[in-house]
Amino acid sequence: MPDEITAACSSAASYTGQQVLVTGGLGFIGSNLAIALARAGARVTVLDAMLPQYGARRFNLDPIKERVTVEIADMRDAAALARVIGGQEFIFQLAGQVSHLRSMEDPSGDLEINCRTQLSLLESCRKYNRSARLVLASTRQVYGRPQWLPVGEDHPTAPVDINGVHKLAAEEYYRLYHRVHGLWTVALRLTNTYGPRMDLVTADKGVVGVFVRRALLGETLQLFGGGRQRRDFNYVDDVVDALLLAGHCDDAAGRVFNLGYPQAYSLRELVEILGEITGTPFENVPFPRERSAIEIGDYWGDFAKLAALTGWRPRTDLAAGLRHTIAFFRRYGGEYLDR
Amino acid sequence: MPDEITAACSSAASYTGQQVLVTGGLGFIGSNLAIALARAGARVTVLDAMLPQYGARRFNLDPIKERVTVEIADMRDAAALARVIGGQEFIFQLAGQVSHLRSMEDPSGDLEINCRTQLSLLESCRKYNRSARLVLASTRQVYGRPQWLPVGEDHPTAPVDINGVHKLAAEEYYRLYHRVHGLWTVALRLTNTYGPRMDLVTADKGVVGVFVRRALLGETLQLFGGGRQRRDFNYVDDVVDALLLAGHCDDAAGRVFNLGYPQAYSLRELVEILGEITGTPFENVPFPRERSAIEIGDYWGDFAKLAALTGWRPRTDLAAGLRHTIAFFRRYGGEYLDR
Repeated sequence: MPDEITAACSSAASYTGQQVLVTGGLGFIGSNLAIALARAGARVTVLDAMLPQYGARRFNLDPIKERVTVEIADMRDAAALARVIGGQEFIFQLAGQVSHLRSMEDPSGDLEINCRTQLSLLESCRKYNRSARLVLASTRQVYGRPQWLPVGEDHPTAPVDINGVHKLAAEEYYRLYHRVHGLWTVALRLTNTYGPRMDLVTADKGVVGVFVRRALLGETLQLFGGGRQRRDFNYVDDVVDALLLAGHCDDAAGRVFNLGYPQAYSLRELVEILGEITGTPFENVPFPRERSAIEIGDYWGDFAKLAALTGWRPRTDLAAGLRHTIAFFRRYGGEYLDR
Repeated sequence: MPDEITAACSSAASYTGQQVLVTGGLGFIGSNLAIALARAGARVTVLDAMLPQYGARRFNLDPIKERVTVEIADMRDAAALARVIGGQEFIFQLAGQVSHLRSMEDPSGDLEINCRTQLSLLESCRKYNRSARLVLASTRQVYGRPQWLPVGEDHPTAPVDINGVHKLAAEEYYRLYHRVHGLWTVALRLTNTYGPRMDLVTADKGVVGVFVRRALLGETLQLFGGGRQRRDFNYVDDVVDALLLAGHCDDAAGRVFNLGYPQAYSLRELVEILGEITGTPFENVPFPRERSAIEIGDYWGDFAKLAALTGWRPRTDLAAGLRHTIAFFRRYGGEYLDR
């Protein structure tokens, strides 16, 4: 399969035989995580609400469809949660709405999806499974516009959109349920994640998905404002690796860690690398107003804390990761390019 | 009337003739604010959901009952909001649930009351009244356990209970709606507020209310762990004064400010002062477990920024404020001591 790189393999092995729940497991990162776990011999249950437009696809779990239990249910449904939560040794929380723009258009909907679901999961764990280890996928959005670079975990949090406000609240829930109720929780702040199974349909799920889609369709890539913003990009297998390492790291409990990449790339560099792989040209266009209001400028994170504690580092460089991503979607694009 | 001190009068005068909405205006601070505004000749509407156990009492507005419009409606009711919001020049947002302990027992309920209501109000303003000035009563809870003292506005935020998480999210909403949507918003982080019309019934609304209730009933005051924690206390008229000054301060837009008091008192000193006024004895008892988990230790805030910008300073010292408070409740206790 063109989507396999070795990154996640070593850390997944430590989950062999263990009972693991992946919420949002039909989505981009959740499905890659579930696949790594199932291939390593973990007993994987996936819980996903399959809310429209949130990137969940049954095809994402095609490689392990005989080896995974899939429950279609909303995490706000306490009875459904109670059904699947008992006996789970690990819970990876990947469910959520990640669109910055949509959160500004429908803040109450974002509150439901990103806050109420988390409280529902944590309350269910408090009642029915106090020994599970909970690993939350959070986001660098909680920092907002960086005051300095690289951004470490002690950088002030000042989210610039409703989605970021709610993601920060979710992180704080996990910290509180650890400190007050004794649950084992950890949160990772993900940065730009890309790779096979990423959502290519929803336009505001991240710049790499937008560019990959246009490249696959042979459309010119559009750079807002010259593409000077610099970012750090993680290939999804490296993110899966980090999630798996964090779940097994005793000293991570109650804490929050950045992911990141040793080098920042401008968006212009990103489209140039994509251009080399796919031959797609690019053009400069003005910044749309609704985007510039929530644009954070340059961002790259300091992941030294996680590296020191778990040995994690990203192993996939941007060009290699993009080549794998393009190869995956060239093979399976029919499943991913339509709504 | 024994509840009148001059603090709020000068700043209220600048609201004469203006149309003002006070949400949560049947509660403790909201009613004191509404009274100050109505007496200064503002056209005051009070919106209150009168949710059980949240401290709303019609009697609180007794002094201005002929001069205030009271709407009983939930802020999550968009139609009700749309009805009252048009034409308001100022909106003081005092509604909310303030119980730390209850937020830990019912986190989803707290989410509804403290987050969804705020989004509902802000969205209504965005749609129906973009020129109103919004003043949010936030709380020092957003800081959690202080890392240093006094706590300034740039102290890291790390709330220790669900209520604090949601209050911080609310603050961030107001900041975002200012920055992204151009609404005029400001947030004040209140510390321990006490005075006439405070809730004496709900046991976990703050230590002064608990002590005042027991003193009025002639019951021994109970100090947890010796009462060594030091806090800053604001008399409600001083808090009303700060809210009114902030609403008229052009340079406050989009910002957050601490309240505070120039001196911190230990809880033991607080009960000694109350003992001098009422003759009530006190005893030491162990810290209840559910309280120690969310106890923040010493706290006092630095209010230099608000002082520099508006000239605000608390004018009522603790002994005088407590004397006024006790006098008020000795006169009207029948309205406040029962559920």
